[in-house]
Amino acid sequence: MQDIEKHLLHRDVQDALELIGGRWRGAIMTSLCGSPKRFSELKEDLKPITSRVLTKELRYLEQNKLINVERSTAAANSVLYTHSEHGSSCGPIILQLRDWAIKHREIMLEYLKE
Amino acid sequence: MQDIEKHLLHRDVQDALELIGGRWRGAIMTSLCGSPKRFSELKEDLKPITSRVLTKELRYLEQNKLINVERSTAAANSVLYTHSEHGSSCGPIILQLRDWAIKHREIMLEYLKE
Repeated sequence: MQDIEKHLLHRDVQDALELIGGRWRGAIMTSLCGSPKRFSELKEDLKPITSRVLTKELRYLEQNKLINVERSTAAANSVLYTHSEHGSSCGPIILQLRDWAIKHREIMLEYLKE
Repeated sequence: MQDIEKHLLHRDVQDALELIGGRWRGAIMTSLCGSPKRFSELKEDLKPITSRVLTKELRYLEQNKLINVERSTAAANSVLYTHSEHGSSCGPIILQLRDWAIKHREIMLEYLKE
């Protein structure tokens, strides 16, 4: 692999991990895999996340076009968060990460039995 | 999705991102995608990583069975780092992350043109 190709691959993988990695972003995108959620529902799903951190990460995901935020004028708590079309395209990666983590756990358990 | 399923999915995705995420782990695994590398070659690939951080992250990846470390008695700098069989199974995820990051960049560029 050429140096420039390697550098681009590093940068792209780093960018993707920045977007859906970290302590909460992957978990928020995972939580929205099933259905749209309100803030309170996300907070419940993601205990012990704080309101401040959840607000910050939702803003980041919205700015990066990974989630849509439907703000209705009816009631304050009626803001709904959903995957954007682009955001839902990370669903397969999330499921692949899950399958890989399960395989990793099996390998580590086998190793610990030795 | 049931609560327990959601919780397990969160945990598994978090575990996978812990293993190959972060500032350097994904980059180290990406760098080893092409071929085995010496410490000095990895350090060159991953500028501006420090020797202390590279040593720590390589130890982490070795403990988690993602890389093999071939220590030959010949010369100090002849230690070779390679993907383990398990480590190479994250190759497809790395390439999928790359493709997703490229698509994300295109979407953001489109948005910025609007």
